Amino acid sequence: MDKKLSLLVDLYELTMAQGYFIYRKDALATFDLFVRQLPANRSYLVAAGLRDILSYIKNLKFNPEDTGYLRSREIFSEDFLNYLAGFKFGGDIWAMPEGTVFFADEPVVRVTAPLIQAQIIESFLLNTVNLQSMIASKASRVVWAAKGRKVFDFSLRRTHGAEAAVKVSRSSYMCGCAGTSTVLAGKLYGIPVVGTMAHSFVMSFKQELDSFLAYATTFPKRTILLVDTYNTRKGIENAVTIGLYLKEKKYRLQGIRLDSGDIVYWSKIARKMLDRAGLGYVEIVASGNLDEFKIRDLLKRGACLDSFGVGTNMGTSIDAPSLDVIYKISEITDEEGNFLPTMKLSSRKVTYPGRKQVFRIQDRKGSFVKDILALEKEKIKGKPLLVKVIDKGRVVYKDPPLESIRGFVRAGLNNFPEQLKNINSRYKYPVVISPGLAKLRKDVSGQLKKRQ
Amino acid sequence: MDKKLSLLVDLYELTMAQGYFIYRKDALATFDLFVRQLPANRSYLVAAGLRDILSYIKNLKFNPEDTGYLRSREIFSEDFLNYLAGFKFGGDIWAMPEGTVFFADEPVVRVTAPLIQAQIIESFLLNTVNLQSMIASKASRVVWAAKGRKVFDFSLRRTHGAEAAVKVSRSSYMCGCAGTSTVLAGKLYGIPVVGTMAHSFVMSFKQELDSFLAYATTFPKRTILLVDTYNTRKGIENAVTIGLYLKEKKYRLQGIRLDSGDIVYWSKIARKMLDRAGLGYVEIVASGNLDEFKIRDLLKRGACLDSFGVGTNMGTSIDAPSLDVIYKISEITDEEGNFLPTMKLSSRKVTYPGRKQVFRIQDRKGSFVKDILALEKEKIKGKPLLVKVIDKGRVVYKDPPLESIRGFVRAGLNNFPEQLKNINSRYKYPVVISPGLAKLRKDVSGQLKKRQ
Repeated sequence: MDKKLSLLVDLYELTMAQGYFIYRKDALATFDLFVRQLPANRSYLVAAGLRDILSYIKNLKFNPEDTGYLRSREIFSEDFLNYLAGFKFGGDIWAMPEGTVFFADEPVVRVTAPLIQAQIIESFLLNTVNLQSMIASKASRVVWAAKGRKVFDFSLRRTHGAEAAVKVSRSSYMCGCAGTSTVLAGKLYGIPVVGTMAHSFVMSFKQELDSFLAYATTFPKRTILLVDTYNTRKGIENAVTIGLYLKEKKYRLQGIRLDSGDIVYWSKIARKMLDRAGLGYVEIVASGNLDEFKIRDLLKRGACLDSFGVGTNMGTSIDAPSLDVIYKISEITDEEGNFLPTMKLSSRKVTYPGRKQVFRIQDRKGSFVKDILALEKEKIKGKPLLVKVIDKGRVVYKDPPLESIRGFVRAGLNNFPEQLKNINSRYKYPVVISPGLAKLRKDVSGQLKKRQ
Repeated sequence: MDKKLSLLVDLYELTMAQGYFIYRKDALATFDLFVRQLPANRSYLVAAGLRDILSYIKNLKFNPEDTGYLRSREIFSEDFLNYLAGFKFGGDIWAMPEGTVFFADEPVVRVTAPLIQAQIIESFLLNTVNLQSMIASKASRVVWAAKGRKVFDFSLRRTHGAEAAVKVSRSSYMCGCAGTSTVLAGKLYGIPVVGTMAHSFVMSFKQELDSFLAYATTFPKRTILLVDTYNTRKGIENAVTIGLYLKEKKYRLQGIRLDSGDIVYWSKIARKMLDRAGLGYVEIVASGNLDEFKIRDLLKRGACLDSFGVGTNMGTSIDAPSLDVIYKISEITDEEGNFLPTMKLSSRKVTYPGRKQVFRIQDRKGSFVKDILALEKEKIKGKPLLVKVIDKGRVVYKDPPLESIRGFVRAGLNNFPEQLKNINSRYKYPVVISPGLAKLRKDVSGQLKKRQ
């Protein structure tokens, strides 16, 4: 997919690029990609999307079909189209590794490159970090609420398209989901694929019990029976019958699924009926419009559940279906090639100037206590979160396997205070501006106001 | 993209398919794809996605790589994998043409096919109709609120991935947007592409005026200047300077853009300053977190605006980032091959049985007054909304050009009562159940309850 995405760009990136091509051809610039404000229900975000960014940068070129289309718009000069035909990204990119917890104002990606190039990649970078970090962050909350119970991604039918579906599977698996129902994501990313049955399967047989039996004999090792098509109590009874039938054949019924009605009530009934029949190992799966809040409430009210199938609400990050990601210039070279810090001054949208780094500070026990947003060259005792991933256009970062990223997310979250992870938390993790950056901001702001 | 989407399927569709393959191989069934409930801020929806469904069905096959992956899961029998290797959709599909206004409970797509086949296509159909109809519906409201002023899709950076970006451009253009900033969508669908400039462009020059001049000399026929980077009043003054400069050269400054601050206030100021300078033709574009409600409020408060760049809120359908689309079996053949109507009974999720059609009823003036959800065979005087698009696996529907669909949406909406389109409307357009369908539902519900 990434190989055909050179035109996945806002037109203005290209028109601005032509302007730079004429007037600021040799300028270099640094851009920060960051989130201006966390959404209402998020006290932290989890970085994701770097894998796709690296692949995009590696493959980015404008083929004759692309430049042909652009030529047909009658906007661009032949000189500039020739430049595009030979385009190759040659700058540096620093980024937080996938799975890094981050906060507002912290650059997740930092690009230093010829101004034209840094501008052209903006739309793709924003789009990619937005989707994947948004889903990773939501999934992290859902997994947290499930308190060690398994969470599965069931969102394919409601994600924003096919690409979003597989990215949702990947980002949510990264943040602790146990698998996905989306087969393509399993194939692309090696994620465990899971599934139960739909109401239509039950309805395709004369009797519910017939449908259960048909499924159990087809998949004796992995049957999860959906028990709420007609009458939930009868459905559970039928599941018990199948559980005993499989037991006789030396198989274990894997589970039952509750998708409607009073899940707390029915899960308790089902647990009792299954246990009494000697089917204590049969798991109970809940689904149907779940999110982190509903999962927490179900567990609080004593629901007997082993796992959750979570669809729409996680797959669309329904309470925050976008992040306030932006991409802002922070320094640019003058005619002599010296980098000069710059910033945006417009009302309520002020940015931080200069080439920056984020330092994460730990206490003696290893717990994270604060982040410091500083100038790169400042000496701060803390772990720098941005690492170099592209050096003069060449990928220098080895993408870790998804399983490692998964472990990294878990370990990272463990080091943050509990209240950060509480899904109701309004806790604000401290992100402190370094003295050097604070001073630079004041100076640059003053200079810019004077100059204009 | 469509050619590689056979595994874009929930695992359970395939496990159920294997169950059918053994136990109900010859069964035929009908499924309805419909929206159970309209989201809170929607009094109507606009159908979209059929184009991609037709292309998916035409190209749907499981190649050796797909079946190889499935084999590696150790779930499926060789017999079934062989069946998949030879899979070809051979059923009938009826659908509402793209751009049709529809309501809750009305089938947008109706599939009658071998049970296995109808099941396997479920996930893709839901995913496709969900995204595209959701965006079409949102865009329709935004366009309505703009009262004839132009609306542009600026959402690329916040859509859920690359595919969503181009689908958003297409669906929103279908519903009256005037263009998109997403270049790839322009290339794929022939949609007008538009763009202005970003703050980074202004910040890349020593003085704002330098940046304006650079842009205007590069694109003298299509310059829209962003005036709020440092100081909005000064920005407008600089834009006037450029407008006069271009005028001298016999060009017209196309517009200015306001992206922050008090848009009503600054648009009035800008209009006055431009008019006084003899630049009455220079348009004023607003952007920055707009949606239908903000656009209505800006216009109500007298903002002097000619067009709107709408991004995140439209591109994610932020107040309703999913539709309650479902795909439910409504009839299935018995052993003798006779279709028997069926339905789901679970609490609050009851469905309508039988093969259905939606009839739209007009009064003498041509205005739409109600829809009737009926059995297909009932004789109802009204326009049937579902048309046959696939006959025994063959596409029999000619996809209209996007421009025609655009006209069809506009004409369709014109025939609905005004209060339906009011963005604050809680108006419920009447969707009536036909006597035949009401009776069938009662009968089938009784039979099913007795049988289980």
